[in-house]
Amino acid sequence: MLRAIAQLVPNADYLFFGDTARLPYGAKSQEFVARYTSAAARFLQQRGIDVLVIGCNTASALALYDVKSAVNVPVLGVIEPGADAAAAVSHSREALVFATEATCASHAYQRALARRGFATHEKACPLLVPLVEEGWVESPVTEQVARIYTIEALRTASANVDVLVLGCTHYPLLRPLLRRVVPQRIQIVDSGEATARALLKYLDGHNLTAGTPTYRFFVTDSVEKFQHQAPVFLGFAADNVERADLDAGRS
Amino acid sequence: MLRAIAQLVPNADYLFFGDTARLPYGAKSQEFVARYTSAAARFLQQRGIDVLVIGCNTASALALYDVKSAVNVPVLGVIEPGADAAAAVSHSREALVFATEATCASHAYQRALARRGFATHEKACPLLVPLVEEGWVESPVTEQVARIYTIEALRTASANVDVLVLGCTHYPLLRPLLRRVVPQRIQIVDSGEATARALLKYLDGHNLTAGTPTYRFFVTDSVEKFQHQAPVFLGFAADNVERADLDAGRS
Repeated sequence: MLRAIAQLVPNADYLFFGDTARLPYGAKSQEFVARYTSAAARFLQQRGIDVLVIGCNTASALALYDVKSAVNVPVLGVIEPGADAAAAVSHSREALVFATEATCASHAYQRALARRGFATHEKACPLLVPLVEEGWVESPVTEQVARIYTIEALRTASANVDVLVLGCTHYPLLRPLLRRVVPQRIQIVDSGEATARALLKYLDGHNLTAGTPTYRFFVTDSVEKFQHQAPVFLGFAADNVERADLDAGRS
Repeated sequence: MLRAIAQLVPNADYLFFGDTARLPYGAKSQEFVARYTSAAARFLQQRGIDVLVIGCNTASALALYDVKSAVNVPVLGVIEPGADAAAAVSHSREALVFATEATCASHAYQRALARRGFATHEKACPLLVPLVEEGWVESPVTEQVARIYTIEALRTASANVDVLVLGCTHYPLLRPLLRRVVPQRIQIVDSGEATARALLKYLDGHNLTAGTPTYRFFVTDSVEKFQHQAPVFLGFAADNVERADLDAGRS
């Protein structure tokens, strides 16, 4: 998500929060996703952010309103931009969404797409996150898993589906693989670029674009582990990484 | 682990703690595994336990000494029993260990087995936990993943390896599948039964066996989700489940 945003909005001062000690969020309950995401939002607000993007689809789906109550800066989620991206390419108004178990159970995409006139079939793909985390983005195993999820989804989805929304930040790394697996009549979109456009629009409207691009990363688990893994997602090295200890001495 | 223990020690009062809001532990740092495990241990001590078994291999490997400092009841980990199980069947004294990334990085099994005269090759198998969590215990995908890990491990391990230790509580559910994948000359052991024997020995020595078997389960995330998933692991329904809120209002 940060990569997509930074490509469109390079001249900004970015503060990134990664809850690496408690991830993944995709199988957690609403209560905990809301609690952890709100704590992260307050942490970032204390460091002087002007606008907050919830980059995680699960957190956007389950905790957008809790986060909006927790802080007094504008908050952008990724579900609405993702739904916009689907609406921009679909003719049939029938969509398929691949997402985490928690995002699917929330039906946040189904509701957002219904407001745009869509019928939506949501499919939980829990193994895709660990496969991406392992870097198996072109593995035959991952292709087999993606094929199983796609077949299962298309068995129950409408035959008129013409757009697949990648409703998890990890899935765009599987886009080339998914393009081989998903029928050609179905276009694939993700919320990254659409969220970046929504942010750019907000920044332009509020004259908030800064002069120099800077990045600060805050993570809740090991700094070294994050620095090792970050380039796979970011496309560049994460130098300025600090530990954010949200629960030190509290459990 | 509880299932293995309850088979050998049925007449005991069991308090089970599952940190479902923060799992999996397998990719976390030592600091966080120690912090979370110690908090769980203190929670159980407050409820009057006589002896504590750390059922999770990652927590045993990374946090045994922290937990021993955190509570004043006897603490049993699973690494030593697992090493005992390997020593009981191996002739070559060369072992292979499949475990999480964090357990392998700690080299806890390597050290425990070295004290029993073993040379050990540790292999991180991070995808096996999510595959078991999904219930894909007999899936061709899981077999392919297990085959990849086995081939990678045997490429660097000694040709004399004659025992494989399943160094993660999830892996025994894959035992039939692994038996088909791992060469027949290699025996497969896990720490479950050996830990149960260690516990039985302790209880007998201290006259602690109770009359009626009771179970209380404490989980940090959704009670319903745990009740849904528990029978797969336990072999029976988990009725007496409560939420244990270790960090309520603290983040």
